[in-house]
Amino acid sequence: MNAVYSPPALFEQHQAEMLPAIETELKACVQAAYGAGLDDYAHMLAYHLGWEGEGHGPKAQGKRVRPMMVLLSAAAAGGDWAPTLPAAAAVELVHNFSLIHDDIQDNSQLRRGRKTLWVKWNVAQAINAGDALFALAHLALKRLDGRVPPERALAAHRILPQASLTLTQGQYLDLSYETRPDLTPADYWPMISGKTGALLAACAELGAALAGAPADRLADYRRFGELVGLAFQVYDDFLGIWGDAALTGKSAESDLLAGKKSLPVLYALEQDGAFAERWRQGPLAAEDLPAMTLQLEVEGAREYVQAEADRLTQEALAALTAAGPETDASLALEELARRLITRKA
Amino acid sequence: MNAVYSPPALFEQHQAEMLPAIETELKACVQAAYGAGLDDYAHMLAYHLGWEGEGHGPKAQGKRVRPMMVLLSAAAAGGDWAPTLPAAAAVELVHNFSLIHDDIQDNSQLRRGRKTLWVKWNVAQAINAGDALFALAHLALKRLDGRVPPERALAAHRILPQASLTLTQGQYLDLSYETRPDLTPADYWPMISGKTGALLAACAELGAALAGAPADRLADYRRFGELVGLAFQVYDDFLGIWGDAALTGKSAESDLLAGKKSLPVLYALEQDGAFAERWRQGPLAAEDLPAMTLQLEVEGAREYVQAEADRLTQEALAALTAAGPETDASLALEELARRLITRKA
Repeated sequence: MNAVYSPPALFEQHQAEMLPAIETELKACVQAAYGAGLDDYAHMLAYHLGWEGEGHGPKAQGKRVRPMMVLLSAAAAGGDWAPTLPAAAAVELVHNFSLIHDDIQDNSQLRRGRKTLWVKWNVAQAINAGDALFALAHLALKRLDGRVPPERALAAHRILPQASLTLTQGQYLDLSYETRPDLTPADYWPMISGKTGALLAACAELGAALAGAPADRLADYRRFGELVGLAFQVYDDFLGIWGDAALTGKSAESDLLAGKKSLPVLYALEQDGAFAERWRQGPLAAEDLPAMTLQLEVEGAREYVQAEADRLTQEALAALTAAGPETDASLALEELARRLITRKA
Repeated sequence: MNAVYSPPALFEQHQAEMLPAIETELKACVQAAYGAGLDDYAHMLAYHLGWEGEGHGPKAQGKRVRPMMVLLSAAAAGGDWAPTLPAAAAVELVHNFSLIHDDIQDNSQLRRGRKTLWVKWNVAQAINAGDALFALAHLALKRLDGRVPPERALAAHRILPQASLTLTQGQYLDLSYETRPDLTPADYWPMISGKTGALLAACAELGAALAGAPADRLADYRRFGELVGLAFQVYDDFLGIWGDAALTGKSAESDLLAGKKSLPVLYALEQDGAFAERWRQGPLAAEDLPAMTLQLEVEGAREYVQAEADRLTQEALAALTAAGPETDASLALEELARRLITRKA
């Protein structure tokens, strides 16, 4: 079998080509924010994006999953991915704006193993740095002008803010859930659909739309992206309890200790067993963790969450097939989807 | 003299027609955020925009200066203002997003005489509500599709995020100035150019560009808007010390008590007289206010600030003349500029 037909090799080949292009495009977009007297402002943005400050480098930059999704979707839809780079940068900037604000809202001290922006500067400046990335995301799309036809650029201008808006709806639900005692797994799906599904749906749609995919295929690309996003988040909840905190780079705390109502917890609360009984008695202490983590597993939460991540990924792959991709970049998209639910961090 | 040629009458005639249209358009734009399970999220947005909750109504909605600037600029440039309504709504949404975040950053309890969003809900939800308005602002521009040619819509998609980005640069400066002891009036101008000038410049440019004004006129419209914005902010600083707190609707405190380095203060610090000496000794108390406010006036700060607001307005009117407006809506624009520096609140 020729190596070129191996999805992992194909994915890595695309990644090797695309990641440097994404980074170059991101830097060109963020450059628009720099100016006289704004050194520290620029430094905040470059620090958060992993380009400057202690611990900068690929690990601090994150996986750039969303821009990869844009570019691979464009290639899968039979287009040239290079002209879609501004949209790839735009979604990554939206994602990073949301991370900065999320870290403030959740009082998180660490992100990708480094101090969060509000800890390193302050809350006021961190809110503003997030706003700057949000503005830069929308400004990035102007770099599509002249590289794609006007109608396609206008489609991108509809897709990006719609996804950003849906993101805030998901974030609203997530924040409001903190004080709600009566949540079930049914409440979970609209929340992650907003927080994680919407932007990945937009990525796949942006790639395909900018590549000129026919309108009736766009819904399939969207659905592929949305399902990949849901699987990604479900698996993130898995890692939040059964992952290695040193690898995820978040605070060295289980989601259980933080009291986060993630999918495993909501599943177990619905089972109404020993886990639920202890959970309802109040916050867990560090010494409760081993027994409670085991109890979750005993009650089937670990198996359920893993199965949900698998199911969603299978559904995503079916949506991708339905989209009728035109090139073997679709194999790289499949590989991306699989990697997101087998990663260690 | 026929009443129709009186600028105040003309302005009020336009305002009577435009304000309800702006409110209708804003509501249609914000509607995109509503959905099942999102009642309180929607209520936050509607509360901030002055449509719901205690004290709602025209006073709570603010003056809608920015959308008026878009519509009047479109009309002055010889276009129909109705198709530019989505851009008018967009700038008002950007303005309101920035107010929500500003109130958090400044720890402000009151806005337009009502509790600020973070006081009424909490900081996390208020950050998110600001983000929602930011997303809605950019989403609003999609309502231009089909109402203006694609090139003009794309111009709006460049102008709006650029202004939003510049806004964050001004906000960065403003926040960073809080801890800088060495500021002069020279530091003031780039800060307010970002915080207030950029969005009003964008308003005038958006109106003219969407109305199809020739490219060489757009810079004049921009300059008109920018100068109106600077005058507006300078006069705001004037009201912050010599205005009536009950009318401005902000916290019932002089900017002096808050330690705000507004233009009158920076002017007096540069004079290096008795005001500067006392200011440098530390925060003022309420009982210092009468003497220190008088001292500012004695040292010429009040006269200086009033003269700057007048000068900037005169320059703005000259830029408007240079723009060669094509209809008498320009008289309403002139009147708007004058009203902004003679308002009581």
